[in-house]
Amino acid sequence: MNKGLLVIISGPSGAGKGTICKKLIENSNDLELSVSATTRQPRVGEIEGKNYHFINVEEFKKRIEQNDFLEHACVYGNYYGTPKSDVINKLKEGKTVILEIDIQGALKVRKAHADGVYIFIVPPSINELHSRIINRATDSMEVIEKRMQCTKDELGFALEYDYVVVNDNLESATSKIRNIIDVEKMKSHRNIDLIEEIKEEKTCKIYQ
Amino acid sequence: MNKGLLVIISGPSGAGKGTICKKLIENSNDLELSVSATTRQPRVGEIEGKNYHFINVEEFKKRIEQNDFLEHACVYGNYYGTPKSDVINKLKEGKTVILEIDIQGALKVRKAHADGVYIFIVPPSINELHSRIINRATDSMEVIEKRMQCTKDELGFALEYDYVVVNDNLESATSKIRNIIDVEKMKSHRNIDLIEEIKEEKTCKIYQ
Repeated sequence: MNKGLLVIISGPSGAGKGTICKKLIENSNDLELSVSATTRQPRVGEIEGKNYHFINVEEFKKRIEQNDFLEHACVYGNYYGTPKSDVINKLKEGKTVILEIDIQGALKVRKAHADGVYIFIVPPSINELHSRIINRATDSMEVIEKRMQCTKDELGFALEYDYVVVNDNLESATSKIRNIIDVEKMKSHRNIDLIEEIKEEKTCKIYQ
Repeated sequence: MNKGLLVIISGPSGAGKGTICKKLIENSNDLELSVSATTRQPRVGEIEGKNYHFINVEEFKKRIEQNDFLEHACVYGNYYGTPKSDVINKLKEGKTVILEIDIQGALKVRKAHADGVYIFIVPPSINELHSRIINRATDSMEVIEKRMQCTKDELGFALEYDYVVVNDNLESATSKIRNIIDVEKMKSHRNIDLIEEIKEEKTCKIYQ
């Protein structure tokens, strides 16, 4: 069995990463979402262990020291981290693991896991992104302004990713990502075993 | 508008390249099939200008001298070549151009057009491939044996391609290739203009 596939879903804040990942997991039986740890406060409706592992700063720093994160970053004053052993074990089992992480995190993971599939979600327009962040209504205007100021720079990271997916429509964007995953599994370097199987059958059954 | 996409569909003889390409073009309005030139005799049902440009050896050699082929090769005693200007012009217009070519040809095209999408079609098994070539019934047993002897070596070229698609079922294989094309269009380096558009909108509409 081939080693699993690591799929990184990332992009500017408010691009819709979280909603897309939720939909993607709902629609599929073969995908595993990696649950990040964070020190930020839960938003309304967010569930411990499902959306995030919500831990305090002290605990987070302890786990950094124990080298227990694949990546970790401090974004707008909150820590976010991807538990390492969880992801590595799932990949060893041949599973497809989805990481929803911010741009800083994705770039760090890429350095160690270049063979992953890096997807950059973008809003159809900056106006649309602005509206979404305001509608979320969980952040102060100051925080929103801070985020909007970063967005232009963040979009500049698109070329560090393999794919750009426009989130103009949830169904369409989710389906595009599902297709990317299926297509990536057809990459030749992930099908070396398959080719060997076909070759062996020739030797055994036709020429013997 | 982005430059077009060059899609190379290749693989061992009898893997089903031709049937898949025919189906792919039938199902799509946005794909252009490049018609190769060949000196081999037409098979029953093959149409000049649609399946191939059937030309004689003298004419073929003249066009080689004129540097009129993207690639050309002599396979089992027959010449095959891909007309250069036709493909280049379609790519300049932003079109998606499908090339159905043998392995020798695909590897030559890859040297000059590394940004193309290289797809390797394989039969589900060597037995299946053997049956297909015999059922085609256009070749002598000597030719068939010659081809079968090459197949194992040919399968070794899979890693020179981007993708491996198993042709276990025509509908499924065609649909997989359609997905590969759609997904390749989401590659970040093919969406630089899109990112710039989103950025510009921000500058114009939000910060002015």
